[in-house]
Amino acid sequence: MIENVTLDISGERFQVFYRLRCEAQDVEAFARHICVEQTIEFPAELIGDDDIRRHVMGQVVSLAPLDDHSWRVVISYAVEITGFSLTQTMNVIFGNVSLMPGVRVDRLEFPDSFLSRFKGPRFGLQGLRDLVGEKHQQLYCSALKPMGLSADQLAQQAYQLALGEFHFIKDDHGLADQPFAPFRERVSRCVEQVAKANQQTGGSSRYVVSLNSPAEQIVEDAIWAKEQGVGGLLVPPGIVGFDMMRRLADDDRIGLPILCHPSHLGSYVASPDNGLSFYALFGQLARLAGADVSIYPNFGGRFSFTRDQCLEIVKGCTDPMAILKPIVASPGGGMNFSNVQDMVDAYGKDIMFLIGGALHKGDATVPENCRAFKAQVAALLRR
Amino acid sequence: MIENVTLDISGERFQVFYRLRCEAQDVEAFARHICVEQTIEFPAELIGDDDIRRHVMGQVVSLAPLDDHSWRVVISYAVEITGFSLTQTMNVIFGNVSLMPGVRVDRLEFPDSFLSRFKGPRFGLQGLRDLVGEKHQQLYCSALKPMGLSADQLAQQAYQLALGEFHFIKDDHGLADQPFAPFRERVSRCVEQVAKANQQTGGSSRYVVSLNSPAEQIVEDAIWAKEQGVGGLLVPPGIVGFDMMRRLADDDRIGLPILCHPSHLGSYVASPDNGLSFYALFGQLARLAGADVSIYPNFGGRFSFTRDQCLEIVKGCTDPMAILKPIVASPGGGMNFSNVQDMVDAYGKDIMFLIGGALHKGDATVPENCRAFKAQVAALLRR
Repeated sequence: MIENVTLDISGERFQVFYRLRCEAQDVEAFARHICVEQTIEFPAELIGDDDIRRHVMGQVVSLAPLDDHSWRVVISYAVEITGFSLTQTMNVIFGNVSLMPGVRVDRLEFPDSFLSRFKGPRFGLQGLRDLVGEKHQQLYCSALKPMGLSADQLAQQAYQLALGEFHFIKDDHGLADQPFAPFRERVSRCVEQVAKANQQTGGSSRYVVSLNSPAEQIVEDAIWAKEQGVGGLLVPPGIVGFDMMRRLADDDRIGLPILCHPSHLGSYVASPDNGLSFYALFGQLARLAGADVSIYPNFGGRFSFTRDQCLEIVKGCTDPMAILKPIVASPGGGMNFSNVQDMVDAYGKDIMFLIGGALHKGDATVPENCRAFKAQVAALLRR
Repeated sequence: MIENVTLDISGERFQVFYRLRCEAQDVEAFARHICVEQTIEFPAELIGDDDIRRHVMGQVVSLAPLDDHSWRVVISYAVEITGFSLTQTMNVIFGNVSLMPGVRVDRLEFPDSFLSRFKGPRFGLQGLRDLVGEKHQQLYCSALKPMGLSADQLAQQAYQLALGEFHFIKDDHGLADQPFAPFRERVSRCVEQVAKANQQTGGSSRYVVSLNSPAEQIVEDAIWAKEQGVGGLLVPPGIVGFDMMRRLADDDRIGLPILCHPSHLGSYVASPDNGLSFYALFGQLARLAGADVSIYPNFGGRFSFTRDQCLEIVKGCTDPMAILKPIVASPGGGMNFSNVQDMVDAYGKDIMFLIGGALHKGDATVPENCRAFKAQVAALLRR
């Protein structure tokens, strides 16, 4: 038996909206089990009627059926048990229960005072619009590829895309520090070429570097890239960690837009009975971790997300979250001239379109394809 | 069309054993699609018959049915495309295909020359045995909990467990930097109390600190903890990233055993049609990322892993991987006096048993329970 504990605790709690899959007779025990598993991880019968039980353990706020085998269970946790770090917040929300069948996190609800401990996105939608001078229409992003090209070849591609006045020209997420196009050489060349194109067009395209560096180097690489004139960072939190993304976003020496790449995150959304929802993962969590843009595979492309799931992501990026700015959802992965209509219909203009290979097809030049693409979207918007 | 590219490339390749779920008529196209998606991510028809096609693109090595709807597809990748970083290696193995239904990574096979670029586990099984002076029998680990106790209370618990001569006494993975037991205070007290118990017993129990710190602090916290006399680090790569774990393992200023905690990793293994296998995730990847111990939920406990899945993990921890030392699987999560027999039968002695709440139950003291537990296992081994 643990002796009675008295704690100095605020009473402020945040809520996690879980979707539990189980039989009706099991749901209450399941919910209570999560309250213990995510906090004290200790036989509850060995805890007295003290502040550990009253405050540290999770509390079931509500419980309601979603269908015959699924339940909406809202559990609250004391803000103090997160130590106000993103790492421990993630741990409380889904750490051990990730290993249990039938637990999915649908939505997070934090008190404003908790969110005020986080800086969140530095730019957000409006900040990005201001940066690139695009007041109303969609933002455009393309990717430098394929892997295997030299730094000079990739930079030439960046030049072409910047001549086409795409706002963000990012490395493909597979570009790291390969011998074909070493990181520093690639960054230098691409920055140069985008600047050259901007001078010619009068535009303000930004080169976004793929930042998937080893843990020893990632911060240093980001600072160095900023000094070279890079215009944003493409960060894969599924590999480097959500908290590393937040750390890069928070650092005033870097101060660059963060584009969150979904590499390795697919398993979180692969099953309706496990993981995080599209809303919580690509929206809320990315935003809490400082992303300004959340990239995800568009419906109808070469991945499997549905239109509804994609629109959930948009909501997660833009629904009110206290001081955390709304961010920009960026559907990609197979966008082309033939599905523009569907995308404009679904997303409207507060979005970043991510178009890759399609700009390199056909007889037209890359800048021509860029302009044609933007013109096509603009025409659809005017209708 | 991309101009023809000539690359200076070794020809060495590593292999990923994927399990694909699809219909027979689709499997070849699916396999080819992965070869593109994980590398050039570019319309293959725009690539000539050059070194990008010959080397940079993935290659299908073999393709065979596993059952009516599942296929073993082995794909090889040039080692150079990883830049020899763990981050980019993870990206190539499972980055974008994580977002596709029906792709699971069952096994990784790296050439020795590739693995020699990694330090891997610093201690491994034999190194840990040497550290704690346990030549033959199982290693024992317990956890300090519940969250909400003060640093002094947790340290008292550490003292009791060290009196019981458990080899590793770890923080519960939920202990971070909460106001109840701030990180530095907790570490100082626990180190003191474990040292005091070691003096009394003549043993060499080691206090393992839960290291789930913010990205700005995690390395500094580890170095500081080492200086205080901490005996190991409990690291959750599902939160801080596998490469951060590797970085902590590699750093000679730290030089501590790394216990890999499975928090947040469950979604990788939640579906048989997505993610990584138990073998690849908790075995191979943890090991490549420098873990000396891989903690996972035991079969028959409060999680859902089966006995076979647990034994897959053990194999992943111990199967030959060039210079990477075999590591110690550590089943936990609901181990108690009544399932000892099953665990000894399944695991034998090259294992680390992780026992938490069960040591605090009943009328006996914690050191008595520790000794009783170890005696029970020893008796079963002698039979």
